[in-house]
Amino acid sequence: MTKTKLRLLIVMMLIGTVTIKAQKIIHDAEQEILLEQYGVQWAKQDQDIDKKLKALEKKFGKKPNIVHIMWDDNSFGEVGIEAFNKIRGFDTPRLNKMGEDGITFTRMYTEPSCTPTRAAALTGRLAVRSGMHTVSFPPEGAGLPAEEVTIAEILSEAGYNTGFVGKGHQGDIEEAHLQNQGFDEATFSMYNQFPPAMWHHQGQAAGMSIGYEKDMYEKKYLVDQTWRPYGYIMDITAKKGGKARETLPPTLENYRKTIEIHQELALDYINRKADDDKPFYLAYWPNVYDLMRVGQETTTSNSTAFAQNMDRLDRHVGEILDLLKEKGIAENTLVIAMADNGPMVEVPAAMYQVVFNGGKGDYREGGIRVAAFAEWPGVIEPGTYVGDIITVHDLFTTFARLGGAMDKIPTDRIIDGVDQTATFLYGDAQSRRDYYHIYTGPYHAATIKQQYKRVWIGGRPGLVKNDFYDLYQDPREMRGMMAQFLWAWGPFDMVKKRHDLMNKKYPFTPTRHGIPFEGIENLRPESIQFQETVKKTMNTGK
Amino acid sequence: MTKTKLRLLIVMMLIGTVTIKAQKIIHDAEQEILLEQYGVQWAKQDQDIDKKLKALEKKFGKKPNIVHIMWDDNSFGEVGIEAFNKIRGFDTPRLNKMGEDGITFTRMYTEPSCTPTRAAALTGRLAVRSGMHTVSFPPEGAGLPAEEVTIAEILSEAGYNTGFVGKGHQGDIEEAHLQNQGFDEATFSMYNQFPPAMWHHQGQAAGMSIGYEKDMYEKKYLVDQTWRPYGYIMDITAKKGGKARETLPPTLENYRKTIEIHQELALDYINRKADDDKPFYLAYWPNVYDLMRVGQETTTSNSTAFAQNMDRLDRHVGEILDLLKEKGIAENTLVIAMADNGPMVEVPAAMYQVVFNGGKGDYREGGIRVAAFAEWPGVIEPGTYVGDIITVHDLFTTFARLGGAMDKIPTDRIIDGVDQTATFLYGDAQSRRDYYHIYTGPYHAATIKQQYKRVWIGGRPGLVKNDFYDLYQDPREMRGMMAQFLWAWGPFDMVKKRHDLMNKKYPFTPTRHGIPFEGIENLRPESIQFQETVKKTMNTGK
Repeated sequence: MTKTKLRLLIVMMLIGTVTIKAQKIIHDAEQEILLEQYGVQWAKQDQDIDKKLKALEKKFGKKPNIVHIMWDDNSFGEVGIEAFNKIRGFDTPRLNKMGEDGITFTRMYTEPSCTPTRAAALTGRLAVRSGMHTVSFPPEGAGLPAEEVTIAEILSEAGYNTGFVGKGHQGDIEEAHLQNQGFDEATFSMYNQFPPAMWHHQGQAAGMSIGYEKDMYEKKYLVDQTWRPYGYIMDITAKKGGKARETLPPTLENYRKTIEIHQELALDYINRKADDDKPFYLAYWPNVYDLMRVGQETTTSNSTAFAQNMDRLDRHVGEILDLLKEKGIAENTLVIAMADNGPMVEVPAAMYQVVFNGGKGDYREGGIRVAAFAEWPGVIEPGTYVGDIITVHDLFTTFARLGGAMDKIPTDRIIDGVDQTATFLYGDAQSRRDYYHIYTGPYHAATIKQQYKRVWIGGRPGLVKNDFYDLYQDPREMRGMMAQFLWAWGPFDMVKKRHDLMNKKYPFTPTRHGIPFEGIENLRPESIQFQETVKKTMNTGK
Repeated sequence: MTKTKLRLLIVMMLIGTVTIKAQKIIHDAEQEILLEQYGVQWAKQDQDIDKKLKALEKKFGKKPNIVHIMWDDNSFGEVGIEAFNKIRGFDTPRLNKMGEDGITFTRMYTEPSCTPTRAAALTGRLAVRSGMHTVSFPPEGAGLPAEEVTIAEILSEAGYNTGFVGKGHQGDIEEAHLQNQGFDEATFSMYNQFPPAMWHHQGQAAGMSIGYEKDMYEKKYLVDQTWRPYGYIMDITAKKGGKARETLPPTLENYRKTIEIHQELALDYINRKADDDKPFYLAYWPNVYDLMRVGQETTTSNSTAFAQNMDRLDRHVGEILDLLKEKGIAENTLVIAMADNGPMVEVPAAMYQVVFNGGKGDYREGGIRVAAFAEWPGVIEPGTYVGDIITVHDLFTTFARLGGAMDKIPTDRIIDGVDQTATFLYGDAQSRRDYYHIYTGPYHAATIKQQYKRVWIGGRPGLVKNDFYDLYQDPREMRGMMAQFLWAWGPFDMVKKRHDLMNKKYPFTPTRHGIPFEGIENLRPESIQFQETVKKTMNTGK
């Protein structure tokens, strides 16, 4: 312990609000640097925050409810900003109003794709730490390890009701099921929504489908009859610790139904829990994309299926916000609405990058800087724009703080999420982080510190690569520079070095493998066949 | 006259508000197509507009004042939208508020560079029609022809005071001087602000200056001692029809002073005319860019000179709006604040393209789609977003309408500007145009119709070029398409054909040439020397 830290600890103990236990959360090295500089100031601010939260709890008789809405693949600016509605030719009045009534984040960072971002939100850790660094596709035979401690587990332990509806995308092994990861009740998908329920149909429209069931193959030149995936399970439902059941088999019609059913389930959850003695945490991560125009009316100038999807999403978010008000619990509920990563920019006439460059999977801003809004009437100042760096991992720690569950956060591993309660209570320029390490898959791709970004991968050795960006001067990362950033070379090297040293001390958990579809009671024959195929795959070569 | 037109004319005459004279403005062919479809509807709406304008005139005792603020080279989104303030790291609270209190335009099109846009604003015509299609640089020996009828002339004739302050950029021949183009008083530059007052200094900083006066050259390898420009005149001032005088010689210090002096002049003009019996039209087109950081404090997160420029611009616009309120004339004054074209994207760490692609000089959206705002308390609905196509040419016709001067618009030439008064009075989806022909220099580069854009230049013959864009689905023009737009081939061909036919009937005026610096009384010796050099240039080969 350095002298500064010791002094800080003594100050904190004297102030008396920060317990030694809370102090023991292990953050990444960079956070320790900030704590040295701001520890005392933050501890003081935390006193004020605690007072405010206590006053709220007194007023409402319980801790605040938390609704975390997170959807797929949406670029910053695509929704929630009226100027961009006009540019893109569709309207998102409810998300625009959410920003007007609450916070519009301009620098909310996620991981670059669905599985990692969702794992990060659940665990508060860089997805690479839990082995969840890569988008899962069926067959997967992998998923979120049981030892990971999710925000649902933490809030459950602290006395919350916990519900999950929508796209989980945490893999197809039983331990990864969300009812086994802390949720009281969960209706969710194990994969993304594309294959095969929607994508095979949409692929069919594009002349590239395999059909979505085994018998739909034309087989005369196939040799391996097991390779193409089928028996896909789109949506399952379960109660905490119990077995799951498939809801609807994966057809395009059912996929479309599921979008609406999930919305109803989310609304129903709020209805049921609104007057409960316990507060609730609802993760509603809706399926959004239906990129076929067949049978869809056009209500937008843009006229694409994508625009219709945004139109529906906006309406759905609006219904959630309306219901919270209707039930009289809006003022005790923090709602976050955000995308999980940037758009799949290679889907022409569908997803689109409106401001930054890059898209889903990319370490450039377009992959990781997303539309994000927060509303909490009476607590969040209306019309706040937050230009701070906030990451999806921070929601974990912030939700824990709001739920009075900081002492439930495990202290045997690195927690990347930083408590950002101050941002929600006080607005702009309150972030407790100024850095973000971006991983694409298992690779450390780039690091952001303040307004600067350095790219670690793809560079050639020596001094020939322009790996540095100033994100204020060049938010679209069009002009990598080197000479202008000679000053930043050493400081960035230091940031990486201390991050790497922490990673060595607390190694990443390898991706957890297992047998898919275990723990589902009503497996269809083709799903069992699929499972058998995967088992063979996994046994071969062992 | 077609039957429809005849019927329309009769309807208009019956309605009694649209005189046959006003009917005779010659618009481009495309507008006639719209008039066939909307003539009756617009004539009815015009009745209501006339009533509203008359009521305003009665209330304030005169026609509305018009302040047109237009600055250089600024991308859409760069100013006036808070989300983008956060992304770019500087604030424009006054322009943001202008949008909140009035209109934010999301599809205001200009010409692709300074001289053409300014000529278009003055004449209501595509700059190519007046020979003003290309940015002028010293030595120029050219400028806006005397026969062009400017909005200043029209409003003067209709009883307005007319004033000009800032960057005119209409060339260096006497007939182009703004006091000879309808302005009662004008303090202005004949060129842009870069050479040599500012640019030579900034070039010097970048190691590429020639010095800005003759004696600063190192001459040992020069043969032609006259080629490099010097004797540059930065700023002149004059009264209507009179001779001009140079204000301050072009040094960086004086350039910086001039920015502030112009602001004072604009404020002074409003102060002097606020209580005048006549309404006023003030074109304040400020110099903005000072891209040297030397001696400038940083008050932005962005920290570049560019950001400081935006900070100052925003403050200056705010002062204008404040003064109008202070003088009690805000409710009888339409203020437009806008950029003249996209940014010079090749000036690293300075100007920047934040949303679209392309920049100054470019027919892509980044060249021509600019930040634009309007305020008129009591008339314009606060917080209006206008997604319609509006062009800088339309301001000419709209200002004439507001000034009761439609009958002063010449009827012997094509007027591209469309009366958009309805947009200011009723807001979104009221535009009377859905097309725009974009010229880069003398070339017809592209045409926009509704959400579609077709590029005319650069294509290869046949079916191999993807020259079509859907600007809702692809606002950044990243994916030109062809097959998807086979339907649009013919309709676009028709639009071009009728435009070309109109151009044949009303040919473009060739660029007007002459001797530079005539009409300036206090020419410095080096300016006379410069003039002599140019005279030689112009005589050689004749």
